[in-house]
Amino acid sequence: MKPRSTSRTRRVPPLGLAIDPSSPEPLHRQICEQMRRAILEGRLEPGARLPSSRLMAQDLDCARGTVVLAFDQLVAEGYVVSQAGSAMSVAANLPDEMLTVPRTGTPTGGKSVAKPAVARRTRALLAEVAPPTPAGPPLAFPTGQPDREAFPFALWAKLLEREWRRPGSEAASAVHPFGHAGLREAIATYLGVARGFTCAPAEIVVTTGIRHGLSLFAQVVLDEGDMAWIEEPGFVGVREALAGSGVKAVPVAIDEWGFSPEAALALAPDARLAVVAPAHHFPLGTVLSLQRRLELLSWAERARGWIAEDDFDGEYRYSGRPLAPLRTLDRSGRVAYFSSFSKLLFPALRLSFLVLPASLVEATERIMDRVSVRAPLLGQGALARFIAEGHFATHLRRTRQLYAGRRETLLQAAMHRLDGLLTIAPDPGGMHVIARPTPEIARRFDDVAVTAAASAEGLTVQPLSVCYAGRVQRHGLILGYAGTPEAEIDLALVKLRDVVLSSAGARLSPPRRRRGVREVSRGKSSP
Amino acid sequence: MKPRSTSRTRRVPPLGLAIDPSSPEPLHRQICEQMRRAILEGRLEPGARLPSSRLMAQDLDCARGTVVLAFDQLVAEGYVVSQAGSAMSVAANLPDEMLTVPRTGTPTGGKSVAKPAVARRTRALLAEVAPPTPAGPPLAFPTGQPDREAFPFALWAKLLEREWRRPGSEAASAVHPFGHAGLREAIATYLGVARGFTCAPAEIVVTTGIRHGLSLFAQVVLDEGDMAWIEEPGFVGVREALAGSGVKAVPVAIDEWGFSPEAALALAPDARLAVVAPAHHFPLGTVLSLQRRLELLSWAERARGWIAEDDFDGEYRYSGRPLAPLRTLDRSGRVAYFSSFSKLLFPALRLSFLVLPASLVEATERIMDRVSVRAPLLGQGALARFIAEGHFATHLRRTRQLYAGRRETLLQAAMHRLDGLLTIAPDPGGMHVIARPTPEIARRFDDVAVTAAASAEGLTVQPLSVCYAGRVQRHGLILGYAGTPEAEIDLALVKLRDVVLSSAGARLSPPRRRRGVREVSRGKSSP
Repeated sequence: MKPRSTSRTRRVPPLGLAIDPSSPEPLHRQICEQMRRAILEGRLEPGARLPSSRLMAQDLDCARGTVVLAFDQLVAEGYVVSQAGSAMSVAANLPDEMLTVPRTGTPTGGKSVAKPAVARRTRALLAEVAPPTPAGPPLAFPTGQPDREAFPFALWAKLLEREWRRPGSEAASAVHPFGHAGLREAIATYLGVARGFTCAPAEIVVTTGIRHGLSLFAQVVLDEGDMAWIEEPGFVGVREALAGSGVKAVPVAIDEWGFSPEAALALAPDARLAVVAPAHHFPLGTVLSLQRRLELLSWAERARGWIAEDDFDGEYRYSGRPLAPLRTLDRSGRVAYFSSFSKLLFPALRLSFLVLPASLVEATERIMDRVSVRAPLLGQGALARFIAEGHFATHLRRTRQLYAGRRETLLQAAMHRLDGLLTIAPDPGGMHVIARPTPEIARRFDDVAVTAAASAEGLTVQPLSVCYAGRVQRHGLILGYAGTPEAEIDLALVKLRDVVLSSAGARLSPPRRRRGVREVSRGKSSP
Repeated sequence: MKPRSTSRTRRVPPLGLAIDPSSPEPLHRQICEQMRRAILEGRLEPGARLPSSRLMAQDLDCARGTVVLAFDQLVAEGYVVSQAGSAMSVAANLPDEMLTVPRTGTPTGGKSVAKPAVARRTRALLAEVAPPTPAGPPLAFPTGQPDREAFPFALWAKLLEREWRRPGSEAASAVHPFGHAGLREAIATYLGVARGFTCAPAEIVVTTGIRHGLSLFAQVVLDEGDMAWIEEPGFVGVREALAGSGVKAVPVAIDEWGFSPEAALALAPDARLAVVAPAHHFPLGTVLSLQRRLELLSWAERARGWIAEDDFDGEYRYSGRPLAPLRTLDRSGRVAYFSSFSKLLFPALRLSFLVLPASLVEATERIMDRVSVRAPLLGQGALARFIAEGHFATHLRRTRQLYAGRRETLLQAAMHRLDGLLTIAPDPGGMHVIARPTPEIARRFDDVAVTAAASAEGLTVQPLSVCYAGRVQRHGLILGYAGTPEAEIDLALVKLRDVVLSSAGARLSPPRRRRGVREVSRGKSSP
């Protein structure tokens, strides 16, 4: 295997090198690159003797030192070997099959060539995930998108600068796999005040989002092929995180009291995990009743099952009082609590957290220390200060007021603009509402088609139907209002009315009607 | 399931509530919490009628409004229902099994209770991963730890501040799943200049590290149970990332020319992936020979296999010329190239990248968009500027010089201090060297024991033996010098000599010898 020089030297074919003195690439690199290619493409054969550096320099009209530099590099790389004296030749031991020009349609085996590049499991997974959502600036009415102007970025930038100007040893070197110690303390304090449960900072894992947290949790407590109940409809990220962890999701239809443990047990009595959003179901906004909460906890205790409690937007509630989280009632350590800062502050933050049952801390720490991805440390110190110094509470107060106003504006405007087409179910909390087709248009209403048509008009809405893992029960549009300034809401609804009419009405209503609405919309939208 | 009031009212037992006006918790929350507990623990039975708010307020010596607030909350939560008139009673429909004090040793089923909390696959994984490394400030000689003082944190903090003061729409909202566009462009440019290959920014995925990148790549191209060749010895993170992706790692012993495709094919002819560090093997520093490189590429082309090229510390080379990366020779799109900024800048940055074969971009994007964790955006804009404005190149120049000095100091001091005990193999690049026991002590030298003993003395070294997936072939100590100031090196080596003598010499050498060395170390270390 060791490079060995060959005695079988050959005549040198014309090398056909051409160097370009005006190129920014140094001459010796040009020579080196061209000779390397000539060798790899077989124009310079293994063992072929090379001209002397003096001759080549003459040929190329450059300094001899330039050629010597190129030869040195080729020798270092193993393409060229020194002969006795100063003569150079092409290495004799380069594998033949590499010394050809790229093949053009002479595959070595039809079967393997036909095999697609992507693994079977990835193709299967891709078939399950929703198509990618187009990127771009947020428009009315993106879901889960907070107001971008409301966040105090100047303050945030200062906190970041303060954190990194003279980073502590924690910040600059390796950190605990669960995240920044100060942030985990700030979260524990905040949960006590805002959510009414106490937990140790040691139980808190800072994650990049619900997908990260849930797949980590599922990896720790469930085996490949185990079953987990999920809410139907529900957040698509839950399905995807479970699929990514090899867990089988069993959709359980929710009713007006939320997730039903009884129905769940009837469907899959052996499930090991229930993933629920008790405070505010996504996307329907249903609150899990107390009785169901206690039934669910009772199941977990009895069957030693697990509960993943997703409290994704519990901070926004505009009327009524919230129920205490499941975690506050968990006597036997079966509830993991998940929440996120990304929806409350700004999405690119990608900082969420998970409160583990105490019994899982050690195993999760070891798994995370070595195998799992960690949350970005960079913003964790700044976020710790943001919470501890009271900016977080201030921001929540301000945005709660802001979003309450937007919600009210949307509900009022929708009664007028969407009258006869869509009705909005009242939802006392969250950052979005659901607009459902009226009975008159329901049969012609395809929420995916309407979403696509809305997108073409610059509107971002989400179809309710993609939230179903199984058979779609209802169509509707998810309208996020948190990221949509009040001034834009009315115009956006006028556009939406237009879209719904032309999409759900195209097959049945006369064109006259559509034009009429267009005129109304023009009249109303001009300043 | 709907809460229904009961007509079967009962006498109210003494509630036993006690409120504490000096507590920071509001009185109504104290009342609410105590009644909730009384209900859950069965002291207030389902259907029990509650005293009027006026009576309770008298009992508790507080304002009636306080009790009303507490009742309102309990009604909202479903624990209490309003009767006809203003009377209140405990809800009748709470599941019986929850209405008890926590159980003390009356499990419902022996088998399920005995089942450990952690899933089987996690227990299996934990058995494979190395024990957690203790956190703490870096000491001589941590591996993969750059110099902490060398990084321009003040400049970095300014770039962060500049990026986040008025973030663009990309920064504040959702971002491409592969990362910040500016950073991906900066990386593509840098690869062209520093590594001699061109790639499209679209092929670059910003990741949190080699584990993240490699498990993402393995997930895309390999199925569960597929085989991958790894270098033996090698980086433990590679094994762990593959294990986490369900891929079977086949260790292939490296020789003086590096990874041998011939040996690999003999061991596992059906492997689908080779994970190699051609520029600078970890931890041995071996460079993969040109012939082997071409053989490996030829295999990938022929068998449509994949190559993961780990170029983890290719930036540090103190003599000789580097070979071109495999990626530069890859004609058929089978090489994914991995590198990291964390070891070059500071570990907490956790930003690395992976250059995908073009054919995998689309599938990877969809997988990442929906399933996989992403790299933190927070520092990506600042890093893009750090590279594009030339600070990265400056930093590499400075640290190359700094580390070359530390390496030289370490090699010189080791010849003197470790004479007769450990010899250091020369390695022209990287951030660490390997110290191997001399034949005299080799039989008594256990690198894990020496590492533990060194740790007790405040020294951080790594045992070579943990880098073996299979049978350990050689013991040795990995000494990282990049993060160890020159002034500390000599003293650290004196300590290390002491540790090695007492650890590897304990069983055989007379105590006299050990004391003698201690005296030397005292004499030399005093200022």
